[in-house]
Amino acid sequence: MNENKTAGLLIIGNEILSGRTQDANIRFLATRLGELGIPLREVRIIPDIARTIVETVAEMRARYDHLFTTGGIGPTHDDITSACIAEAFGVPWEKHGPSMALLGAHYGEGNFNEARQRMATLPRGAVPIPNPVSVAPGFTIGNVHVMAGIPRVMQAMFEELAPSLERGLPVTQAAVHAVGIAEGDLAAGLGAIQDAHPALDLGSYPFERPDGRRGAALVAKGTDAAAVSQAHEAMLSLIRSLGFEPVEGEALP
Amino acid sequence: MNENKTAGLLIIGNEILSGRTQDANIRFLATRLGELGIPLREVRIIPDIARTIVETVAEMRARYDHLFTTGGIGPTHDDITSACIAEAFGVPWEKHGPSMALLGAHYGEGNFNEARQRMATLPRGAVPIPNPVSVAPGFTIGNVHVMAGIPRVMQAMFEELAPSLERGLPVTQAAVHAVGIAEGDLAAGLGAIQDAHPALDLGSYPFERPDGRRGAALVAKGTDAAAVSQAHEAMLSLIRSLGFEPVEGEALP
Repeated sequence: MNENKTAGLLIIGNEILSGRTQDANIRFLATRLGELGIPLREVRIIPDIARTIVETVAEMRARYDHLFTTGGIGPTHDDITSACIAEAFGVPWEKHGPSMALLGAHYGEGNFNEARQRMATLPRGAVPIPNPVSVAPGFTIGNVHVMAGIPRVMQAMFEELAPSLERGLPVTQAAVHAVGIAEGDLAAGLGAIQDAHPALDLGSYPFERPDGRRGAALVAKGTDAAAVSQAHEAMLSLIRSLGFEPVEGEALP
Repeated sequence: MNENKTAGLLIIGNEILSGRTQDANIRFLATRLGELGIPLREVRIIPDIARTIVETVAEMRARYDHLFTTGGIGPTHDDITSACIAEAFGVPWEKHGPSMALLGAHYGEGNFNEARQRMATLPRGAVPIPNPVSVAPGFTIGNVHVMAGIPRVMQAMFEELAPSLERGLPVTQAAVHAVGIAEGDLAAGLGAIQDAHPALDLGSYPFERPDGRRGAALVAKGTDAAAVSQAHEAMLSLIRSLGFEPVEGEALP
């Protein structure tokens, strides 16, 4: 039986909910967590409202083995994630000595103002996640990993954190594109393949190519690489049985 | 007092959680809902697991005036959204006469197989949302609007639905880019502008340009267009007071 740990992702901030910004963090984390065998089970995007953050963190950290958050740890008034995490854990939010020293040295005495000192203020008991891009750290407290929202900073923090995460069985995927076949003609055969491999997730994702050709990406996914391979072969056969030549999709990790 | 209705968005399907697919629906809906004065308050992305869908629909539709869902209404075995919505509402999931007729005529008798008939099977009481792209409808039941996951189809369904949604006060935004100034030097002044306009959401979103220049986008947002304009002027003055020339950001609707 697969005992993989699970992950949730909480994206905090108004810029995606208003449509101002296109999300650029979900796919990176979904892919990397899959590679580490810590599959991502849920994503939530919420505004920077304190009560909403506190309640959502409490709920999601109870539901998943790991909760990753992005956004809201900068120096401005709308950066309230860190204080809210402290509240969710019922611990003080206080200046963190080593981070104060680190950021103080980075900014220099005259520039290490009150706003920047907030970035060195952490929930008591938090362990900083180094930030090789712009110094101000993320942190881990309990099963919650708090990261920046800027993609390049978030990615760097995640890679600092990754070696300390207990890995599970990597999730293997195989994909094939059925170009020119409608999903409705694939459904019965695909359902039969799913029935033959109940431990796998088989998905069908319809698409329309820029040239107007329609079809579906058939994806088999699971931690049993041999079963994924068998299901993949069966999907190739299904497409050929309908008179089409399958187009190999990228085999994601 | 602003009495705008609120919206939640539920994205159903494994392809985004696995990292296989980049989300392409959140930004469209966030923008359009803002224009209609029905601000988007939360997004969740969940896998196609029946219990998860049923529970999340029940929770989110109680929390927001409107719940929009995307994904999982095609013909394959993993398209379980429609049946789960029926369960969440406690109504039968049954063949819908007009949709059966519509899809039967579209596919032709020999091709209107069992899989495709599932796309004409709706929760009792649902009202179809027309699909001008590929015929198979979405539907509205209660305050839940169920749409396809393919962006072009989803967008077409949303525009069919939009005229029937009660509009609120449109959310106005004004943005300005502070290029070359660190957030930590803007924080105090921005906090003062926020204090002067408590009804607005003021946000600071740090960025790094492809050319390596850093800065922050300062955004003022709210339903009081005059206040947004005043806050925008104050943000321009703040940047100039620090010795920089503000760069106008796109003023989103």
